[in-house]
Order: sequence, then structure tokens, then C-alpha cells
Amino acid sequence: MLQAAAKTLSVATTTSVSRGILLSIRHYCKKTPATLRVSEAVSGAELGANVKVQGWVRSVRAQKSHLFLHVNDGSSLQSLQVVASSALNDPLLTFGSAVEVTGTLKKSPNQKQPVELEAEQIHIVGECNPLEFPFKIKERHGLEYIRQFPHLRCRTNAFSSLLRIRSEATTAVHLYFKENGFLQIHTPVITSNDCEGAGELFKIEPSGYEEEEHFFSVPAFLTVSGQLHLELMSGAFSKVYTFGPTFRAENSQSRRHLAEFYMVEAEVSFAQSLEDLTKVMEGMFRSATEHVFAHCAEDVDLFHKHVTPGHREIVEAMLKNRFPTITYSEAIDILNRSSENFAFPTDWGCDLQTEHEKYLVKHCGNIPVFVTDYPYDLKPFYARDNQDHPEHTAAAVDLLVPGVGELCGGSLREERLDLLRARLQQAGLEDTYSWYLDLRRFGSVPHGGFGMGFERYLQCILGVDNIKDVIPFPRFSHSCVL
Amino acid sequence: MLQAAAKTLSVATTTSVSRGILLSIRHYCKKTPATLRVSEAVSGAELGANVKVQGWVRSVRAQKSHLFLHVNDGSSLQSLQVVASSALNDPLLTFGSAVEVTGTLKKSPNQKQPVELEAEQIHIVGECNPLEFPFKIKERHGLEYIRQFPHLRCRTNAFSSLLRIRSEATTAVHLYFKENGFLQIHTPVITSNDCEGAGELFKIEPSGYEEEEHFFSVPAFLTVSGQLHLELMSGAFSKVYTFGPTFRAENSQSRRHLAEFYMVEAEVSFAQSLEDLTKVMEGMFRSATEHVFAHCAEDVDLFHKHVTPGHREIVEAMLKNRFPTITYSEAIDILNRSSENFAFPTDWGCDLQTEHEKYLVKHCGNIPVFVTDYPYDLKPFYARDNQDHPEHTAAAVDLLVPGVGELCGGSLREERLDLLRARLQQAGLEDTYSWYLDLRRFGSVPHGGFGMGFERYLQCILGVDNIKDVIPFPRFSHSCVL
Repeated sequence: MLQAAAKTLSVATTTSVSRGILLSIRHYCKKTPATLRVSEAVSGAELGANVKVQGWVRSVRAQKSHLFLHVNDGSSLQSLQVVASSALNDPLLTFGSAVEVTGTLKKSPNQKQPVELEAEQIHIVGECNPLEFPFKIKERHGLEYIRQFPHLRCRTNAFSSLLRIRSEATTAVHLYFKENGFLQIHTPVITSNDCEGAGELFKIEPSGYEEEEHFFSVPAFLTVSGQLHLELMSGAFSKVYTFGPTFRAENSQSRRHLAEFYMVEAEVSFAQSLEDLTKVMEGMFRSATEHVFAHCAEDVDLFHKHVTPGHREIVEAMLKNRFPTITYSEAIDILNRSSENFAFPTDWGCDLQTEHEKYLVKHCGNIPVFVTDYPYDLKPFYARDNQDHPEHTAAAVDLLVPGVGELCGGSLREERLDLLRARLQQAGLEDTYSWYLDLRRFGSVPHGGFGMGFERYLQCILGVDNIKDVIPFPRFSHSCVL
Repeated sequence: MLQAAAKTLSVATTTSVSRGILLSIRHYCKKTPATLRVSEAVSGAELGANVKVQGWVRSVRAQKSHLFLHVNDGSSLQSLQVVASSALNDPLLTFGSAVEVTGTLKKSPNQKQPVELEAEQIHIVGECNPLEFPFKIKERHGLEYIRQFPHLRCRTNAFSSLLRIRSEATTAVHLYFKENGFLQIHTPVITSNDCEGAGELFKIEPSGYEEEEHFFSVPAFLTVSGQLHLELMSGAFSKVYTFGPTFRAENSQSRRHLAEFYMVEAEVSFAQSLEDLTKVMEGMFRSATEHVFAHCAEDVDLFHKHVTPGHREIVEAMLKNRFPTITYSEAIDILNRSSENFAFPTDWGCDLQTEHEKYLVKHCGNIPVFVTDYPYDLKPFYARDNQDHPEHTAAAVDLLVPGVGELCGGSLREERLDLLRARLQQAGLEDTYSWYLDLRRFGSVPHGGFGMGFERYLQCILGVDNIKDVIPFPRFSHSCVL
């Protein structure tokens, strides 16, 4: 115990910003208080205990005889109320400063905060000049304002809630797949696949590399999708998924696009119909959303009450109803029967635009809706040919959701060697994809899969308008800060 | 049910490679068998049930009256034994072909496989020409051989075991951090940080981009570490971690290096000493390893019995003992006292080389060992100055493990604004890292963290010699296949 006390003391003396009240070795040797996280302290489980809490000051109120602080350490949205004699006040106890408080956990007379920490010692670990700190005490800063300070915005309530939600949603996605027997595959970021539209690919080489030959001997790119790599795995595992960063070099600064974003992708072997995919998409959406709402209730509430009021009801309606399925042809009929003036054409064969997707979602009751069986010519080489006539379609499906538009896209994959080879030949890609054809040569099975934009998912359940506000480090054209 | 039967029939007829026995609608309408995964079927929970199993043939044995198959679907290392009348045999039932078998689960007379499927129908979903398929029935192919077929190697026992272990180890890492109150942060892949040694960075631009200005307005690189981004988060959350791909443009084809590899990184606020970090490293190592050994026992056994015999005992010794800690200065003493002829110098101030690390691990009993307090001048700008004399050290720590050498590296970070600024000024980096200095201006706290190479971790617990054999898609100089 002497050692622990000496250590604490030594940090206090060697920290250049340290001030405030130093702990006496004598007091420490008597009893070393347990260090609790704020979430543990406010839970009430340790009432009466002598504890130490470490965190950052979220509010300061000095009265004649007493000093009130709120201390937060990111373990939950809630801060711990600290009550101290005003003798412990210090001008350096400001919004944003880091403190270490020892004292006793007591029942609070305050209904909203049932627990408070009666402080015996307050040690200021790191000061925070309120004139220079961009966030001000008691002010509710908008998401757009805090976005200007990417290295500090995690210190606001709204963005720390977002990060807890994002972390929990990540857990929820993994949990859903784990519970449903999917194997997680780390698909590569660097790939030599280049055919998905060269304009949107990032290419990579070593910095300062001047050699004529490529570092990887072939041109190498950042992945736009792990699908083909997952398909390869689905020749040995009947259910696989991947969840990681994907990239598009789109010259766009819109509220909907990022150069680096996270995608959840799954592939199901022996899938017989699009229903085998839509039930996974719907299951994942429901399961993840219920998990997040249950495990991050306060954080989600912050968004639904203060950032995007009214959004809670929209999400609840989504969860209450089964997601309907319409075919692309039915969608076109709906659009053509509507009295809306669309900017883009709605003829059979045209791609659905965001305006169309939003109309379809509204038309179906403002809940998520699956659109299936798109025109064959709109879809990439791997989409399974429905071989229907006269309207030639592919077994592809999109999930459209309120506010966001397209959340997921998927398809059955062409598992028939002859049809796939013919299509690749036509596109002049047979050699490039000889490995992909091999998958159909050896133990080929009907299979399909989908991808979901993880940021769009977060936007959808929280109602956040700008995709830059749901990712810790947004990257887009002309912006790669930090 | 009619619909289900019709669907199955239609897949059977439209699959170009389909052959074998077609299901009759009449039979199907009587009773639709439940589809089971192989792991469920072999568990014995469904004995007596009429079921359907889908997977790939791992062995075929035809006797006079009976046909025996082993069918695997990746859900476990175990295959399901299928017993059928030899009337159901078909020349297309070969190693690697995909099948759908319906029948009844029975108790097997065979001790090793307590359950077998008595087949009523065998439908060949996808054939596999044994002359063209690179893996041969009943042959145990070495890791080096199967590495030549990156798109097919997941179909071998060894690599499918590896992928299940990798997936489960990923789960175990997330679980450890979750249970210990860490928040997961998605640190970015694309970053504008460039100072960690320009020669090893990959730079990125859009493919075919000809403009003079950079896409991101600044030079952009693939991340070599999420540490600085995590440190930013540790100003609001007391425990954070990240787990994702990191990159080094090293021109190396060694057994130890990849251009793209996975790293687990954690950052702990209010860390007072290196012990606050080493207990997390050791806790994670033990917890993940015990989890993987418990949840992937058969797969781990495959490695420990057939790929790297004798390795089990090495890992068990690691888990049985606390990891010792020695200082760098003690390590230098040990090396200098040894009778070994090292290729590299062992003077105080020299970096430890792999040969030194391996010797130290052996010296400590062939278990993992922490080496702390490295010479200050060997460490990057963010390492915390121990301010000791005459041997000037930094509060940095490496975890060295048997077979692999360095598994983890970490340090306390310099949280003192004046010291950090002086060091950045000296290096001419004050402007580049003004945001990083800001973290010390506003509520700075003592903190530290570490990174663990995930592939090296897998090598360490499995005894796999070549890093390319523990990642699904290895990328290294001159190689970016698929």
C-alpha cells in the first residue's frame, strides 16, 4: 500500500499541470479507496464505500458552502455528481479539466441522480483553459459545430453517445451473425480486383516509390466490397460474413457519401431464393436495433429527444411491421401511377433514384421495403439471371429505408458455370476472373449475399442527417483530417 | 409446402450441373425435412429425425451394398457420415463435390462418429472434377502446398480449421475488451499522419487521377497504427480499443511480415505505470487463448497434432505461469552474460534484435516475458520520458513470446505538454501535431497503450511458422492475389 500511495504521489508531482490537493501518504496508508468507473458509481451498488473516481468535469457550480461538480469518464452518458466543501474549490476546476476525486458514495436527495460522491479530496490531473477550449459549459453545441473539432468532439455529450452507440451496434452485428452460425472472415483491404468501375477506386503504392514495377507486381486498389472474397469462402462454409472498412474515390461532399465507410457483408450458401437473403437482412436489422435500444437506452434517447426529435416513433413503426417486398416491376408501376413529378425517368429498365426510393418507402407506410428482381442489364456480372421473359431480370434485392434510401443491396450469385462464363467472356473479363470461375468448377452451389452500409444503418436508427456525424473520422474529397 | 417442394425442384432443374436423384413432389409434400448444419447433425440432438444436410464431400467409399460419404459444411471440423444404398452411388460423387442429402439421423455403430445419416436421397448440387481439383482425397497437403491455391485453400481441413480459429479468436478479443469496459473505436484506414517512417507508408490516390491537387487536398496514407486516434479518444473515454487492418510497405517476403495485417490496439487513461498496461496485455492473451482452446478444441488439436506437434505443451506452459517482467537494462545484462554469439551488438542503447528476443524468452523459461524501460532515444516522440539518470529511458514495454519474438509493444504516452512540445519542436513536428498537442492542453491525463499483432498471436498459440498461413488473404511485396 505504501507503494501505491507513493506512485500516486509521484504522478501528482511529476505531472506538470498537477495542482490542487495532494494526497497525504498517511491518509492513503490507512485505506486505499477502490477506483470505480462513473457507470459503476452511479449504479448505486457501492453506496457507503470509500472510492476514487477519475474523469473530466462536465459542470461546476460553486455555492457559499458547497461545491458541485459533474464528472464523466465516458463509461456512460450519466455523470457522477460530486459534492465538496467549498474549501476544495480551485479556479482550475473548469469545464473539461481532468480530475481524480476520492470520497464516499452517498444516497443523493436529488431524484434524478440517486447517488453522489461526497468528496474528501479533489486532485486536478489536467487543466483546461475555458477561453481556449472550443466547447462551452452548459451550451448545447450542434453536430455541425462540433464537427469542426474532430480531435475534441468526442468530449461532447452528443458525440460520446454516438460513439457508445456505434460500439454497441458493432457488437450487436457480430452477435447476430455469431448466434446464427456465420463465420467471420477478414476480407482484405488491398486487392487486385479492379473491375467495379475504375473511376471510383483508390490505387496504392508505397510513398516515394519510384520503381517502374508495382510494389505488388500488379496494380493494387482499396477494396470496394468483400463480396468476391466472401464468395470464395462460401465454397467451404455455408454462412460467412465480414464487417470492415470499404472505400470509394467518389468526388462527393454530400451528406450521404464517404470515401471510407464500414460495410457489413454476408454470404449464404445453398440459398434458394431471395427470401433466404431478405430474412437475414431483416433479422439483422431488427436484432441489432433492439440490442442497441436495450443496451444504449440513454444514449439513443439523447438523439431521439435532442438531436432528432420525433425519430423514435419512426423507428418503432419500422420494428412493429414486417418489411414488405415488392418487385422492381411493381415499384415501376407504383411510381408511374403516382402524381409526383420525378426529376428522373421511371420507365422499366431505368435505375431507381433516391427520389424514387424515398417515394416507395413512403408509399409502403414509411417502413423498410425490399425491392426485388431488377432489370438484368442494370446488375453486375455476378447477379443470377432469372431467365424470365419478356422482362429480363436478375435475382437482386435492395432494402430501402425511411430517410436514407438504399440501406442494403444483395443478389443471388450466378452459380452456373456456363452462364457466368458467357457473361464474363462478353465483358472481356474471363481471364481476370478465372479464379472466380474456378469456384463454379469445383463444388459450386447456389448462393447469395448482401452488403449493408453501417453508417447508413446508424443514420437510419438515430435519424442523423449527415453521414459525417456517425463515424469517428470522416474521410471525403478534400478532407482527411488527423 | 407445395411451394417449398416446387422451389427445390426448380433449383434442381435449373442448376446446369444438377444430376443425381431428383426429389419427387409427392414425397416432399408428405414431410419437409428440417435443414440441419453438420455441427447440429453430429451433435446427436436430432437422432431419429428426418433431415436435410447440405455440404461438400470429403470422402467417398463404395462397398458392394453400401456407399459411405463424409459431408462437411464448414460448421465444424467434423464431417457427417452418410450411409446409403449403393444404388445411390454416382460417378459424380467425388471429393469436393457439393451435395444435398436427405435421410434419417441414426446412432452409428462407429465409436468415433456416434451419429450417421441414413440417406434416402442424394442430390449432387455441384460436381468437382477430381483430375482438375488441386486437392486430392485422403492426402494431407502441407500448408505451403495449399498456399498456392488461395481461392480454394479454405476447402482443406487445415485451413478451414484456421479460419474457424481466427474467427473465434476475433470474438474472444472483442469479448475480453467488452467485459473489461473498453469502448471499441473504428480508427481510420486512410490518414494524413505521415511521420512514422516515410519509407514504409503506402500512399493513396484515386485510380487514373491526373489532377495536380491531392484527392484529399493533403497527401494521404494507409494507417500504420491507430494509436494517435485512440489517444484522442482517451481524452473522453477511460478505456478504448481498436481491432482492424494496418499496413506497412516493407519490401519483405519473410515469414514474419505482411503488407496488410491485423492489429489489436488499446489505450488506458489514468494509467499510472507500465503495470497498468502489462496486466491488460497478459489478461487479453490468457483470456483469448483460453476462449479459443475451449471453443475450437478440435480445430486447435488439428494444428497441435498434425501441423505443429509438441506445440500444445509450449502454450500450456505459457498459460500456467505469470509472465515475468525484466527491464531493458536487465535484458542487456542477461545477453552480455550469455555465452551465445549474437550477430548484432548488445551494448546498452542498441535495439533488441529477434535473436536477442528469442534468447531472452528461452532464458526466462520459454514463456512470454515483458521487457520494460527502453532507452529514450530508441522510442518515438510520444513515449513517456522516465527522466532517469544516467541511463535515460522511456516508459515503454514489449511482450516477447516463444517462437515469434515481439508480440506486443506499448508505452505510457507523454502527457506533459511542455515535455511533449519540446520533443516535437526538436523534431520539427510541432505544427503537424498541433492537434495532438491540443490533447495535452485540454484535460490531459496520464495514459498509455499498446498494440498486438493479431497474426503473430495466432502463430504463437498454434505454432504456425509462416505468417501467410494464418491470414485468409496474405499481401506482401510482389503478391496481391485475388
